[in-house]
Amino acid sequence: MSQGRGPAGSLQIAGIITLTTDFGTRDANVAVMKAVILGINPLVRLVDISHGIEAQNIAQGSYLLQRAHSHFPPGTIHVAVVDPGVGSDRRAILLETSHAYYLAPDNGLLTSVLREAERDRDPFRAFSLTNPEYWLPRVSNVFHGRDIFAPVAAHLSLGVPAESFGEEAEGLITLSQPEIQVGPDRIVGHVAYVDRFGNLLTNIHGLDLLPLGDELEVVVGDRVISGLSRTYSEAQDGTVVAYIDSSTHLAVAEVRGDAAETLGAGEGDVVEVRTAAAEDREASP
Amino acid sequence: MSQGRGPAGSLQIAGIITLTTDFGTRDANVAVMKAVILGINPLVRLVDISHGIEAQNIAQGSYLLQRAHSHFPPGTIHVAVVDPGVGSDRRAILLETSHAYYLAPDNGLLTSVLREAERDRDPFRAFSLTNPEYWLPRVSNVFHGRDIFAPVAAHLSLGVPAESFGEEAEGLITLSQPEIQVGPDRIVGHVAYVDRFGNLLTNIHGLDLLPLGDELEVVVGDRVISGLSRTYSEAQDGTVVAYIDSSTHLAVAEVRGDAAETLGAGEGDVVEVRTAAAEDREASP
Amino acid sequence: MSQGRGPAGSLQIAGIITLTTDFGTRDANVAVMKAVILGINPLVRLVDISHGIEAQNIAQGSYLLQRAHSHFPPGTIHVAVVDPGVGSDRRAILLETSHAYYLAPDNGLLTSVLREAERDRDPFRAFSLTNPEYWLPRVSNVFHGRDIFAPVAAHLSLGVPAESFGEEAEGLITLSQPEIQVGPDRIVGHVAYVDRFGNLLTNIHGLDLLPLGDELEVVVGDRVISGLSRTYSEAQDGTVVAYIDSSTHLAVAEVRGDAAETLGAGEGDVVEVRTAAAEDREASP
Repeated sequence: MSQGRGPAGSLQIAGIITLTTDFGTRDANVAVMKAVILGINPLVRLVDISHGIEAQNIAQGSYLLQRAHSHFPPGTIHVAVVDPGVGSDRRAILLETSHAYYLAPDNGLLTSVLREAERDRDPFRAFSLTNPEYWLPRVSNVFHGRDIFAPVAAHLSLGVPAESFGEEAEGLITLSQPEIQVGPDRIVGHVAYVDRFGNLLTNIHGLDLLPLGDELEVVVGDRVISGLSRTYSEAQDGTVVAYIDSSTHLAVAEVRGDAAETLGAGEGDVVEVRTAAAEDREASP
Repeated sequence: MSQGRGPAGSLQIAGIITLTTDFGTRDANVAVMKAVILGINPLVRLVDISHGIEAQNIAQGSYLLQRAHSHFPPGTIHVAVVDPGVGSDRRAILLETSHAYYLAPDNGLLTSVLREAERDRDPFRAFSLTNPEYWLPRVSNVFHGRDIFAPVAAHLSLGVPAESFGEEAEGLITLSQPEIQVGPDRIVGHVAYVDRFGNLLTNIHGLDLLPLGDELEVVVGDRVISGLSRTYSEAQDGTVVAYIDSSTHLAVAEVRGDAAETLGAGEGDVVEVRTAAAEDREASP
Repeated sequence: MSQGRGPAGSLQIAGIITLTTDFGTRDANVAVMKAVILGINPLVRLVDISHGIEAQNIAQGSYLLQRAHSHFPPGTIHVAVVDPGVGSDRRAILLETSHAYYLAPDNGLLTSVLREAERDRDPFRAFSLTNPEYWLPRVSNVFHGRDIFAPVAAHLSLGVPAESFGEEAEGLITLSQPEIQVGPDRIVGHVAYVDRFGNLLTNIHGLDLLPLGDELEVVVGDRVISGLSRTYSEAQDGTVVAYIDSSTHLAVAEVRGDAAETLGAGEGDVVEVRTAAAEDREASP
C-alpha cells in the first residue's frame, strides 16, 4: 500500500505531501526535506507545487498555494516554507481544515487558505508545533523546513493526531491584502501574480463582474481592453485580451506574447474593470 | 501494488504517466495536473519529461517528447501540453501506438512521434477526446491540461479502454519540418535543438553520413569542423567538435564551452556535412 | 511493496535512487535516466537532489551531494553525473560506504563523500563498472548516465550485489580542495558554494571556531562582520551577518538581500575569521 492511514484530527490522511518553498531547485534543500520525510514514511507520495517563489515573498507563496491546494485529494498534507523569520520567535503552525492539512511558519503564508476557509465558513483548527518529540533531534536556527516541518509532515502522514504536535493556536497572522473595491459601474482590483507566460492574474473573481453587464472595459495602466475574450486563442497574435482564467479570476494576456512586458505591469498594479458606459459618462460631464 | 492494470486498447498499461509542457515549474500548473491525476489514480507513477519548453513552441515540445519517449517501458502514458489554441476548436487527441499512449492537443505536438511510427510502419490509432464522462466536471477554456488531459490520462492508467474516450480521429495535424537534403557528396540539415550545454543537436542521423565516407567536414555558419570526434572529451577545451550524440544524430559541441554562443547558431539554422573533397572541387573548378 | 529488497554488499538497499547532475531540467536527459531506471525497477523511489549544477562543475556537484546525502535513509543509492570526460578512459565507479551507495564517474565528483568517510574512519569499497551485463545493450560515448549509471543503479536497487558490477577499484580520484588554515587567532577558509539566496556557504566548520572564543570578526573582501548572529532574522534588512548554517558551517548572508552580490564574492573566495583582538595587535605593532 502506498498510502498513509488512520485518522489525524477528523480528516482522513491521503498519503500525499506537497512542498511549496522559495528554495529553488539548484541547491539541495528541497531534496533534504524529502530525505527527512522518506526516512520517516518511505511510502508517502511527494508532489512539488513550486520552489520558484521569489526569495522571501510570502504573498507569492500564499497565492500559489491557494491556486493549487483545492485540486488535491482530501487529506493531503501541504508543507509551505517561505520563512524569513526562521530562528526568531515566530510560531510554526499546523492548520487543519475540513479539506487538508497545512504546515507553515506563522507569517502570513497561509493567508489565502485562511481567507478561503473563512469565506466558505469551513471550520478549522490550528496547532503550534511545540512538541519536539516529532522534530529532528537537533534543530538549527536556519532550516526549520528540514528540522521541524518535514518530520512533522511525515509523522502526520503516518496518522499521528494533529493535537499531538503542540497546543492549539489562535490568532494566526495574515497578510493585509488589498481587497477589491466595488462601485456601481466599476471594480478596482490588482494584479495578484504574473505567470510564466507574462499573463497578469488578478484578484477579481469572474462572479464579481456579473453586475457590470456585458459591455466591459478592462484598464491596466493606460491600456484599455474592450470586452472579455472567451479564450486567448481567438484573437490575433500580439493582441492584448482580458479573459477569465483557469481559477475563475480575471486575467490579462497577450496572444502569443508577454502582457506583463508589453504593458509594463507587475504584481500589485491596479486593474480596473468598468462598464463601457462608465467611461463615456466620465468623459462628458 | 504501484502499477495500473488491465488492457486499454491492445497495449498493456504500465502505470506511468509522463508530463511534457511549456508551463515552467514556478507557477503551480504542473502540480495542479498531478493533483487531478492522483485524485483519480493515487498509485500511478508520475515522471516529468520537461516543463521548460519555450512558451508555445510546439516544435520544441515535439522534439523533446521524441527524445525521451522510447526509453520508457511499454504502455507508458505520455501527456504533452503546449497548447496555444486551447479553447478553440482544435481537437484533443489520444494516440495509441504499439509502444505507448500519447495525449496532446492536435496541433503538431505529436509530429515526431507520428513520423517515427510511420517510418517504422508501426500501426497506430487515434481518438478525439470528446467524451466528457472522463473530464473534470467543469472545463475551462484555458487549461485543458487540468480539465481534460490529466483526468483522461488517469482514467486510461486505470484501464479504461482507449475507445471509451471518443471517436476515432483521422488526419492528425503534423508540423511541416524541414527534411534533410541528401546529395552525392553533401547533406544539408538543420539544428533541431540547442541543449543546456549549448550543444547543437541536428536532424541529421548518423546513418545518413555513411555514404559520405570518412573524410567529413561539418559546416555551421562560417565555421568548418574537420571530421567527427568519437567523444567531446578527447579534444582540448574550447575546440568545436562534431560528433554523434546520444540519440544517434549529428551534433556540434564546444569542449567545456557553449557552441551555440560561440558560433552564434540556434534552432533552425543550417548544418551542412560534406566530404572534404567536395569543398576542394568547388574551390578549384 | 514499494521498496527494493535484499542485500547488496553488506548494506541493505532502501529502495530509493537519487539523481544529481548538471543536465538541467529543460532537456529531457533526466527523464531519460528515470525511464531507464523504471524499466528495470518499476517500484523504486526517485528523488532529484539537483540538476542545476553549473555545466561540468565537478566541485559544485561534490559539494551538493555532500550536503544532501547524509539525510537520506541508509541504503539509498545516489547517482551523480557531472561528466566532462564521458567516453574517455575515465572509470565509472560504484562506491559503497556503511551508509549508502554512490554511482559516479571517477573524476572527483565523490571527493566530499570520500573525505567524509575517511574522516569518520568509515570503511568503504569501490568497484569499477566494467561488467556490461548490467548496462544498456548499446553504450554511447556521450551519455553514460543513461547507458551505464541508470541501469546499474536500477539493478543494484533490485538487490544485485555490488561486486557483480565489476572488479574492485583503488585510488579513486579526488579534487585537491583547499584546506582551511588554522592559526592561533585566525582561520582562513573559502566560499564553498553560493546558494539561491546569495548566501556564502564556507568550508569552515562551526567547531573550528571554538578556540577563537566569543569575540570574532569575519572578513570577506574588505567587509568586516563583527560577531556571529544566531539567525539571520534577528538583524535589520540589508545587514550582512555571519552565522552557522544548517550544515554547521560558517556562512555569510545579507538579511533579506543577496550577500554574494552586495560583497561581490563568489565560490573560491577567501573568508577569514579572527579574534577581534588579532586585528588590534596587527594594527598597533
